[in-house]
Amino acid sequence: MKLSRRDFFGAAGVGAAGVVALGAGGLAVGRAATTDEGTTTADAVEFHGDHQAGVVTPAQDRLHFVAFDVITDDRDQLVRLLQAWTDAARRMTRGQDAGPVGAVAGNEYAPPDDTGEAMGLPPAGLTLTIGFGPTLFRTADGTDRFGIADRQPAELVELPAFAGDELRPEISGGDLCIQACADDPQVAVHAVRNLARIGQGLVGVRWSQLGFGRTSSTSSDQTTPRNLFGFKDGTDNLKAQQPATLDRFVWVSGTGSWMDGGSYLVSRRIRMLVEVWDRQNLRDQQQTIGRTKGSGAPLGRTAEFDPVDFTAQVDGEPAVPPTSHVFLAHPTNSGTAILRRGYSFVDGSDGLGRLDAGLFFLCYQSDPATGFVQVQRNLRTDKLNEYVQHTSSAVFACPPGVTDEDDWWGSGLFG
Amino acid sequence: MKLSRRDFFGAAGVGAAGVVALGAGGLAVGRAATTDEGTTTADAVEFHGDHQAGVVTPAQDRLHFVAFDVITDDRDQLVRLLQAWTDAARRMTRGQDAGPVGAVAGNEYAPPDDTGEAMGLPPAGLTLTIGFGPTLFRTADGTDRFGIADRQPAELVELPAFAGDELRPEISGGDLCIQACADDPQVAVHAVRNLARIGQGLVGVRWSQLGFGRTSSTSSDQTTPRNLFGFKDGTDNLKAQQPATLDRFVWVSGTGSWMDGGSYLVSRRIRMLVEVWDRQNLRDQQQTIGRTKGSGAPLGRTAEFDPVDFTAQVDGEPAVPPTSHVFLAHPTNSGTAILRRGYSFVDGSDGLGRLDAGLFFLCYQSDPATGFVQVQRNLRTDKLNEYVQHTSSAVFACPPGVTDEDDWWGSGLFG
Repeated sequence: MKLSRRDFFGAAGVGAAGVVALGAGGLAVGRAATTDEGTTTADAVEFHGDHQAGVVTPAQDRLHFVAFDVITDDRDQLVRLLQAWTDAARRMTRGQDAGPVGAVAGNEYAPPDDTGEAMGLPPAGLTLTIGFGPTLFRTADGTDRFGIADRQPAELVELPAFAGDELRPEISGGDLCIQACADDPQVAVHAVRNLARIGQGLVGVRWSQLGFGRTSSTSSDQTTPRNLFGFKDGTDNLKAQQPATLDRFVWVSGTGSWMDGGSYLVSRRIRMLVEVWDRQNLRDQQQTIGRTKGSGAPLGRTAEFDPVDFTAQVDGEPAVPPTSHVFLAHPTNSGTAILRRGYSFVDGSDGLGRLDAGLFFLCYQSDPATGFVQVQRNLRTDKLNEYVQHTSSAVFACPPGVTDEDDWWGSGLFG
Repeated sequence: MKLSRRDFFGAAGVGAAGVVALGAGGLAVGRAATTDEGTTTADAVEFHGDHQAGVVTPAQDRLHFVAFDVITDDRDQLVRLLQAWTDAARRMTRGQDAGPVGAVAGNEYAPPDDTGEAMGLPPAGLTLTIGFGPTLFRTADGTDRFGIADRQPAELVELPAFAGDELRPEISGGDLCIQACADDPQVAVHAVRNLARIGQGLVGVRWSQLGFGRTSSTSSDQTTPRNLFGFKDGTDNLKAQQPATLDRFVWVSGTGSWMDGGSYLVSRRIRMLVEVWDRQNLRDQQQTIGRTKGSGAPLGRTAEFDPVDFTAQVDGEPAVPPTSHVFLAHPTNSGTAILRRGYSFVDGSDGLGRLDAGLFFLCYQSDPATGFVQVQRNLRTDKLNEYVQHTSSAVFACPPGVTDEDDWWGSGLFG
């Protein structure tokens, strides 16, 4: 008799009465409406594909992002970890437990292969997206840690310094990252926590960030959310419904390398000085952003999705000021486009009477140099800079999708 | 023409074209399905009542908790702030904006009376619950700051030290607290942020905590959630459906003081060493908690809501070990009961490769001495202590409810 995880958990702890307990225990545990045999429920996002899920997937409501340092020096251990992570990710995105606990059924003297806090919860649209940082390929002193230095993409280099950066090294960078997005934070946290558990002794959590409200639509089916400045954010973001544009700006292609089908991820933790912002008058706020606070319409226009008109004038001045965020970030003026996928955060307070709140900015692009770096350089005169501080920065190469049950995260890089 | 907030925001920024914009702007902004005249939507929780909402209200999914230091020395300023807060809380719990911006319609040169990030979102079950800390009545050196020292309840004293406490003063205590609970974190954050904005110059944020998954049911209509140890938590919690028990253990009554109808709140930020826990075998975990991980049944029983049987034996040993958490915390052995209302949290990582995760424990009781303090003292031999660290602690007197439109938070104390 092969016990599923739910039976195992249900049976354990009642000793000789185990058989009696199977019925009641089986009802109470296990992820809702799933089986260990791979049945998925309606809100599960397919894990397999040419691209990783979690990039153009309609942005879920919650985020748990984690960056790991690799502790082991052993390439084979790292590869086995990536394989084990892939198996666990495949299961968890289907709403299953992280490990096939049934295989060791009855052994209550072993640590469980799932931590349990997501039992009874649906898949909740969970996506798990992996990325490899520059330091995985080569340490700062040039050491080829895992024999992959010659496979480091030219595009994967540390970001340049930007004016105004206030980066904290301890929450920047990382050898590996996992972006967990779900509509239930407990599901996202459960996934990251179990991947960290599986990696115990091989990787350590370098930094981790929770996000509670998506700040960009990545699908034209989604309404535009508001960021903590109270403005609609991401109106003109790239959308899943624009495949040609995504192929141009987001997905890597034609390099003949292991990154074809992948994308580069830039993360920036952007503290927003909300108390300062809240003291600005409405006119200043709108002139800083370049949009109307209520409707989200570009200044000088009337509806959110009206195209920005950079020639419009109000009282003899440009309706959209040339120092506004929309003016400088817009593809028309930055000359490029990125897929934004950020989340709001509040990480307590700062000890000075203020909330430690802001935007955990995530964006995907086919090349950071012509993506985030180009946009950010164009923002050097952005009026918004007065109200934000970038406190964390990282860049990762996110490989293409896992194609089938035998494939694994990093197979193209390490295989 | 009196403009509502949504009209104001919609009209601003388009200059002379304001009238044209009202239509489009009016559709896009304002809290969903509410009006400035007080219409409430289905998921709004009534703000007025004999007791404050947010205590026995069925626990919402998300929390933003904030503790403030009062900066002003002026009693009248503090009273006016409490009145302004009450007005804003009344509005926001109805799904309206924090302030009646319509009253200053057209003045785009004033900072908005709402920060905007909740526009378009429903009330989401928002409750706002205020509490007064011991330091509001009397500073550590005995100063009667606001002329209310003689009104400090005997029950409202700093908690005693407990074995194993690792409290950080900067995230403990506070003159005032606001507990914001909602089913949408953006709604909870919006409420706290706007109350902080209203209090600028009079109060400062001392500390603040987000919680993402409730860890206790407060209503028998709710399923029991799981905490980050993967166990069902709060099975035997007090429930809204037990009014006589609540009157005995939760609500203050018969004192003839301003606290009748109120309750005392204890908050404890409990770091959970999840990486250590995850290495324990299932049997140890269950013996530590005293329940089966899968079903939540007390050890020796078969279903979650089976009464704990402290006499049951398995293999000649007590089924529920006397050092287990359930054994020691249970009313049978602690001799008391508290209403738990906690939330899970993940606050990034700790710089040592581990998640900074745990339980933000909140509980309500009619007297902390015979509530939390009594329970916590009984836990000194709890096996669970090995896996938890209390890093923050606070106690607050939560006054009775605001009864009508003319009443305000603290009217009994300051009135």
